[in-house]
Amino acid sequence: MIEEFEKRCPVARGLDRVGDAWSMLILRDAGLGITRFDQFRASLGIAPNILTRRLKALTDAGLLERRRYSEHPPRDEYVLTEAGRDFLPVLLVIGAWGRRHHGKGARRIADAETGRTLEPVVVDRETGRPIESFRVSLVDPEESPQA
Amino acid sequence: MIEEFEKRCPVARGLDRVGDAWSMLILRDAGLGITRFDQFRASLGIAPNILTRRLKALTDAGLLERRRYSEHPPRDEYVLTEAGRDFLPVLLVIGAWGRRHHGKGARRIADAETGRTLEPVVVDRETGRPIESFRVSLVDPEESPQA
Repeated sequence: MIEEFEKRCPVARGLDRVGDAWSMLILRDAGLGITRFDQFRASLGIAPNILTRRLKALTDAGLLERRRYSEHPPRDEYVLTEAGRDFLPVLLVIGAWGRRHHGKGARRIADAETGRTLEPVVVDRETGRPIESFRVSLVDPEESPQA
Repeated sequence: MIEEFEKRCPVARGLDRVGDAWSMLILRDAGLGITRFDQFRASLGIAPNILTRRLKALTDAGLLERRRYSEHPPRDEYVLTEAGRDFLPVLLVIGAWGRRHHGKGARRIADAETGRTLEPVVVDRETGRPIESFRVSLVDPEESPQA
């Protein structure tokens, strides 16, 4: 769905790979340890044909890797690639937003080891400043970087 | 599209409001200062009927606010609400992912004031630790928080 003039936008590039709610919920479940078709289906209540299409799209886009775990009968499982794992923080930020604005009775996000509640927030890596405090622009790559 | 058993998941709650690529690109454009129907249409190359539907959905979901800026002829513009502005960091993290994994020739994300390149990263607010280094779980609200 990316148009010609969208091709340089990093947001559009990300969304072109993972631009719908089902895909993101599949990645969430994969991040929580789910790997098999029937598990995804039960967790999401998703129609099998939609799940098949989304798993294929995420595999083609390089976020999931398909692995055969049984030859007789032939059965595959789906595990996150490095790019797929790298996408998980996006889901945590969406979850944090969901809790802030529509959070009554929602699960909280916790460190699985200690149980401590986590509050995902987006900062600039170099300065550690929360990025909501910046005014942000998108700059064409050929423009020379400043400062 | 949220199923009964998804109702407690903060990620699903977020995606239920902003769960498709068009909605997120509309929010991106709103964050970059676009407010009017024809501007969104030109920026996104989106069909008018789809744009109308998405603007209404984002307004109903409380991320955009519709304001009349002309009475004759009647014309509305769309501006981010507080919840809408609060969603923008999600887009920056998607953009950072897009650049890392599909970034050749993509625009970079910069501080609009200084031009300095920003690298959005997700950290836990309290500890400042990058959240990709945690193993994360989702915890039902009635479970007592630990640690």
